Amino acid sequence: MKLSFGIPKGSLQDATINLFRKAGIHIDIHGSRSYFPQSDDPELDLILMRPQEIPRYVQQGILDAGITGYDWTFESKAKVVQVCELQYSKASRTKCRWVLAVSEDSKFRKAEDLRGKRVATELVQTTKNWFKQKHIPVDVEFSWGATEVKPPRLVDAIVDITETGSSLRSNRLRVLDVVLETCTILIANRETWKNQQKKLKIENLKLLLEGTLAAENFVGFKCNVDEKHLRQVLDVMPALHNPTVSHLSDKGWYAVETILELDQVKHIIPQIKRAGGSGIVEYPVNKIIK
Amino acid sequence: MKLSFGIPKGSLQDATINLFRKAGIHIDIHGSRSYFPQSDDPELDLILMRPQEIPRYVQQGILDAGITGYDWTFESKAKVVQVCELQYSKASRTKCRWVLAVSEDSKFRKAEDLRGKRVATELVQTTKNWFKQKHIPVDVEFSWGATEVKPPRLVDAIVDITETGSSLRSNRLRVLDVVLETCTILIANRETWKNQQKKLKIENLKLLLEGTLAAENFVGFKCNVDEKHLRQVLDVMPALHNPTVSHLSDKGWYAVETILELDQVKHIIPQIKRAGGSGIVEYPVNKIIK
Amino acid sequence: MKLSFGIPKGSLQDATINLFRKAGIHIDIHGSRSYFPQSDDPELDLILMRPQEIPRYVQQGILDAGITGYDWTFESKAKVVQVCELQYSKASRTKCRWVLAVSEDSKFRKAEDLRGKRVATELVQTTKNWFKQKHIPVDVEFSWGATEVKPPRLVDAIVDITETGSSLRSNRLRVLDVVLETCTILIANRETWKNQQKKLKIENLKLLLEGTLAAENFVGFKCNVDEKHLRQVLDVMPALHNPTVSHLSDKGWYAVETILELDQVKHIIPQIKRAGGSGIVEYPVNKIIK
Amino acid sequence: MKLSFGIPKGSLQDATINLFRKAGIHIDIHGSRSYFPQSDDPELDLILMRPQEIPRYVQQGILDAGITGYDWTFESKAKVVQVCELQYSKASRTKCRWVLAVSEDSKFRKAEDLRGKRVATELVQTTKNWFKQKHIPVDVEFSWGATEVKPPRLVDAIVDITETGSSLRSNRLRVLDVVLETCTILIANRETWKNQQKKLKIENLKLLLEGTLAAENFVGFKCNVDEKHLRQVLDVMPALHNPTVSHLSDKGWYAVETILELDQVKHIIPQIKRAGGSGIVEYPVNKIIK
Amino acid sequence: MKLSFGIPKGSLQDATINLFRKAGIHIDIHGSRSYFPQSDDPELDLILMRPQEIPRYVQQGILDAGITGYDWTFESKAKVVQVCELQYSKASRTKCRWVLAVSEDSKFRKAEDLRGKRVATELVQTTKNWFKQKHIPVDVEFSWGATEVKPPRLVDAIVDITETGSSLRSNRLRVLDVVLETCTILIANRETWKNQQKKLKIENLKLLLEGTLAAENFVGFKCNVDEKHLRQVLDVMPALHNPTVSHLSDKGWYAVETILELDQVKHIIPQIKRAGGSGIVEYPVNKIIK
Amino acid sequence: MKLSFGIPKGSLQDATINLFRKAGIHIDIHGSRSYFPQSDDPELDLILMRPQEIPRYVQQGILDAGITGYDWTFESKAKVVQVCELQYSKASRTKCRWVLAVSEDSKFRKAEDLRGKRVATELVQTTKNWFKQKHIPVDVEFSWGATEVKPPRLVDAIVDITETGSSLRSNRLRVLDVVLETCTILIANRETWKNQQKKLKIENLKLLLEGTLAAENFVGFKCNVDEKHLRQVLDVMPALHNPTVSHLSDKGWYAVETILELDQVKHIIPQIKRAGGSGIVEYPVNKIIK
Repeated sequence: MKLSFGIPKGSLQDATINLFRKAGIHIDIHGSRSYFPQSDDPELDLILMRPQEIPRYVQQGILDAGITGYDWTFESKAKVVQVCELQYSKASRTKCRWVLAVSEDSKFRKAEDLRGKRVATELVQTTKNWFKQKHIPVDVEFSWGATEVKPPRLVDAIVDITETGSSLRSNRLRVLDVVLETCTILIANRETWKNQQKKLKIENLKLLLEGTLAAENFVGFKCNVDEKHLRQVLDVMPALHNPTVSHLSDKGWYAVETILELDQVKHIIPQIKRAGGSGIVEYPVNKIIK
Repeated sequence: MKLSFGIPKGSLQDATINLFRKAGIHIDIHGSRSYFPQSDDPELDLILMRPQEIPRYVQQGILDAGITGYDWTFESKAKVVQVCELQYSKASRTKCRWVLAVSEDSKFRKAEDLRGKRVATELVQTTKNWFKQKHIPVDVEFSWGATEVKPPRLVDAIVDITETGSSLRSNRLRVLDVVLETCTILIANRETWKNQQKKLKIENLKLLLEGTLAAENFVGFKCNVDEKHLRQVLDVMPALHNPTVSHLSDKGWYAVETILELDQVKHIIPQIKRAGGSGIVEYPVNKIIK
Repeated sequence: MKLSFGIPKGSLQDATINLFRKAGIHIDIHGSRSYFPQSDDPELDLILMRPQEIPRYVQQGILDAGITGYDWTFESKAKVVQVCELQYSKASRTKCRWVLAVSEDSKFRKAEDLRGKRVATELVQTTKNWFKQKHIPVDVEFSWGATEVKPPRLVDAIVDITETGSSLRSNRLRVLDVVLETCTILIANRETWKNQQKKLKIENLKLLLEGTLAAENFVGFKCNVDEKHLRQVLDVMPALHNPTVSHLSDKGWYAVETILELDQVKHIIPQIKRAGGSGIVEYPVNKIIK
Repeated sequence: MKLSFGIPKGSLQDATINLFRKAGIHIDIHGSRSYFPQSDDPELDLILMRPQEIPRYVQQGILDAGITGYDWTFESKAKVVQVCELQYSKASRTKCRWVLAVSEDSKFRKAEDLRGKRVATELVQTTKNWFKQKHIPVDVEFSWGATEVKPPRLVDAIVDITETGSSLRSNRLRVLDVVLETCTILIANRETWKNQQKKLKIENLKLLLEGTLAAENFVGFKCNVDEKHLRQVLDVMPALHNPTVSHLSDKGWYAVETILELDQVKHIIPQIKRAGGSGIVEYPVNKIIK
Repeated sequence: MKLSFGIPKGSLQDATINLFRKAGIHIDIHGSRSYFPQSDDPELDLILMRPQEIPRYVQQGILDAGITGYDWTFESKAKVVQVCELQYSKASRTKCRWVLAVSEDSKFRKAEDLRGKRVATELVQTTKNWFKQKHIPVDVEFSWGATEVKPPRLVDAIVDITETGSSLRSNRLRVLDVVLETCTILIANRETWKNQQKKLKIENLKLLLEGTLAAENFVGFKCNVDEKHLRQVLDVMPALHNPTVSHLSDKGWYAVETILELDQVKHIIPQIKRAGGSGIVEYPVNKIIK
Repeated sequence: MKLSFGIPKGSLQDATINLFRKAGIHIDIHGSRSYFPQSDDPELDLILMRPQEIPRYVQQGILDAGITGYDWTFESKAKVVQVCELQYSKASRTKCRWVLAVSEDSKFRKAEDLRGKRVATELVQTTKNWFKQKHIPVDVEFSWGATEVKPPRLVDAIVDITETGSSLRSNRLRVLDVVLETCTILIANRETWKNQQKKLKIENLKLLLEGTLAAENFVGFKCNVDEKHLRQVLDVMPALHNPTVSHLSDKGWYAVETILELDQVKHIIPQIKRAGGSGIVEYPVNKIIK
């Protein structure tokens, strides 16, 4: 069994290869055949490919599965199975959005004001449909890049992707509307999904990739506590992740172990110390699967 | 509540930002406002500043607290609360020292020999006072840098900082005396320290920073041992850190867990193996709070 | 007690220094005396030296011990104690081999076809002896480097080292025979080995280096499981490394802990999840000693 | 007078900015508004833009002129004035070509064999028209990049750009036909070209850019020669560039000065030496205008 | 004869060492004694030193001469001979200025508004005197660096150096007044200047450094022209640099040679071409001395 | 006609490829066949090879010619034609030397003191012969590298190459004697040298390489001078390179042109200025052939 699998080239590439490595699959992208990288998982047949093209090739069955953006899957109207979302970015919990934006100083206040104007975007079909549904006739042109610098000199408006909005701000653009929310997804070909062996392989990948992504936001934590303070210490811990409590040989003493979200550590550790925890140790984790 | 906090720019900068990151606070020093870096702790209002200036601004209350050197706090005679020392450097357990040094080949043997001579230093006030207390009249001049290359061509002596002495040696200087010992410290404004909420915030910072610094010198350690060898294994372990002992399901077997100082690992592991420990695992830790 | 110890310069150098660092011994190769690097182990007196020369100097007693290749020890016929093998390379479980190779297009099919021909190699003595034992007269010349590009323009055949064979392939060479298998080894001087104190020191080094190398191929693993699923979870785990099972305070629940080989993680974690394991955590380890 | 001018972003960008610099116009592409770079020529209003988009914007008059490829001008059917070709590349005197290529091992021998097959390209319109004129129905799909790795797994054939053919070879592709020859060109808007002041400005630019490009392939050359050998020395020199001959004060001696093509220098200098030239000096030149 | 000479460390260092190299004096700043760099001019004894300290040491005679800023010479009130200005920067023909600046949003409109306020600067004496002459009492404090980010949070105003004003703008500062204009200067000790041999050496240095700086703004230029167009071609050339005209062997033809300012080249070459010049060659120059 | 030609790999490699490029021959060492680099001279068939091996292969006729060191030619006793020396290094006019050196602190004062001692060197044959001629029995061992750090711990003495002596000094070695002087040479096979066409090709190479090396030490120089000062100006110029004098159109004025050695420029230009030269221009040169 060989699963042909599309790895997204470009801005997601390093993060994806890194993620696989942490999940236990080494991908070697160097060497002469770099678009068909080797890995140490003999069941994977990897192809490095622009995320725009992955949905098309997964639909056609040239790829069994792949990692790409929801946006390009939507844009190409590809008929594929969406296996799961993969939240790569720690920077922000909000999804990326494709937004309709105009120059800060322009007189345009809403999508309707763009009637008859020129809009540049890389997401041409989605943009055309969006305006069509609103019955606003506009001239949508394909942008080969640097879309965000075009208003107002080169075009009236753009539809561009943004995560934190900082690129929009530094180009003095104003958002009028959201055209599409997107995130990284794992997709599979529909026929592949009916093949039990391949489906199991894809689900194992999903488990490992999700477990690895989870681990980036967590740390391992343990401390000792005596019977008297056990309740207080457990009360401080987040309810979500059930701590593991075990008896120590020292009568009346317990070891408490759990995982903590990275963001919470700086708040919880001082509280646990005050609640009576001692011998506190925080350690890094590679994978977390609840 | 916002705590305005001074981060030392220069030689301590990377180590400080790194320390905060390990402690769970990400500081972003890139971008347009790099002297007022963002962090993911909304209670901190950070300012990047030369360590020489931090004591002055903490005293004036422009900063609530900050990390700087004991030397510059002393030099500026700033009236501030010294919260704790932070021992950054693993290289050496000895404190940094400001020393009075002269050229290796010079005839000067003790501070008194410098009567009427020229001394260059960045620590002008402290140096002047030190000589004054000894009733030795010298001409102290401010050095804009590269102080250690000045004797004997440009000045007769210098007062300069040294950690390991290697810079002094490679510039063929000889130490006559120690003018001041110094280390990195966390200081707070006196009024801030009376504000319970801000004081708690500073103490939490202290706990996290100290726990993170401790972890750099420790590793986690665990092994299994049967009843017969438990005592011997425990005897090998350093008394300081009480090992945690727990029963395994296998009757008569114990799991022993502790932290070990990095320096001792190479000596202790072979001894534990010989004492009967098995399944020995050493793992990295992020924070250690006893 | 001071153990003079040879660190191999060149392709093994970074890996060796890295290995010592992970084992708990920091080697500082910078600074003015870089061939006699400092370490934080006062019992070690390190010398950086080409691996070709280490066996000779260990035999002569100028070094007490050192890390080098089996090939150079064999080539120099040095009379030394081989303490243990150290398997550095994760890339491949097969040993490195010195092979007799000719140009892909050449007519040579076996060693005998090279009668009277010219053979270039860095391993001159071993190559001469190998041909001599087969009663094949050839002209063996010392190669100063880039041996693999020489056939067929400059020589008829070569004896060169290969790990994965990729350099041979990209130079269009064909292997005729294996002349010598080799790996990295720890060797000691015969007199040193009779000195109990020095022998103990070398054995401690062996323990730490082997434990560190083992850890590169393993991760720590733990999960919780209830009584009902305990057997199934344990069945999934590799027999080799006895898992540690302990009772949790929650009646009927167990914590299971073990180490897993990196290669197996991607197969085992999904199985454990399906067998009823929960709260699965994988974490990095520094050293593993069974 | 301000001439809005498009600089091609991407593979031509550095070469273009370098060319302008050598021509005497410094372009500063750093800083916050990098798509609208500053220059020290107050008559130029520069915009950095993908070469694919420059013809469209020159036609629309948003740009007065710009540097782009002939291919993209042709693809977009833009109605613009082609001012001149600019031969950037010294590597090869042949023009770049967009070729129809298939996998080396494929059975396709000529364009006609691709009837009903899938062809990937970045030059969609030109490719469609080319097949249409030949009455060969094919399915042309837009390629987002890495077109050359797609046959035979992802598509049957490609139309891709090549200069030396080395990328085709290393991807084991075979050329079936040439679809379009291309080179770098300077284009202008048709209305702009009727404006005398702007036309003069563009022609001055053309003169400077061509003079600078010429200089990259030439060196300055001078030598002394006496009357007796003058004829022989002049005979050796290439006819194309009329050498400048002047009398020296030394009666009967001449200084001969010319420019030589870089490629010819290694052949001509030895000949001139033998023909009687002395005091030979070769020097670099910045601009050459015949 | 040995001339002890101060080279400014810091922002001027690379430019100065580069300038000396082009002038024919190689300075080697690497190696163990980098503050006392070697050169291939045996008459120079170089010392690398902060520009702030050079005037003081030149006045005291520890240095015979040196390159520093006018500002630091003024600040230290050093009694030295100012030999010449050296205009390093091509970026701008205007001198650098130390300006009094406040936050863009502040209410301060003129120096007088700062009565009783705090002003940070590296140029403490000059700033104090400037305010004193205007009878405005302010509190001037020494700034250890990053002066431009201090208003308004840390101080009310600053006196800082600016060349193009871009750092002021990006820190949202507004200039109230100019405190001092400055440029790079060559200074000499007064006694040294009375020594004929040393004075000649310094004047030779001045000639070479000025000639080298001039060459950075000029190129060599030559063309051929017949008698008929000679006058027109000469008329196009800048009056400042007298072109050299010589007869060619071809009767009625002339070679015209001159140097042109870099800025003018792009304007003049097209004019010369139109005026009848041919065989136009522009070449780089190392030194220009009129 | 194809000339097979050896380019020395290692410390001379970059300098050699650079020299060829300046001489007008571009060598491309990148790409898959890097030991057999391509050039734009179709008559050259280049092989990159360790300089130690070039003499052997030139003697055997596998190479027609090559660039290597005199030392390795001597060591291998190769019977080849030495075409010319090529003085690469501007750093020093003295030749490189292989010297016999011992530890600074050792008691050895002359070669004879080493009777019966161990000497490490890369130049084994030459060293053995040198000691043999002096009737001093020593044990010469091949050193695989880092020879200079071996005394006194690993060997008693070394024979190693030195240019400026700085490596010897920093390793605290003392020179006892010179074993061999060496420099870079161009050598040819004896049979090749009898082939007129190949000999001409090698002589052309020699001319271009020597002319290019010369140019690195020279600059072009011209100035104008009137009749009155002509003699004085010419008197200042070095006798070696006959200046070219030509009449200007301006009656009574002359243009003087010559080349100057880089080292002399800083002395001569001020003198020419004082002697009455004006319009002085110094410009870079690529090749100089007298």
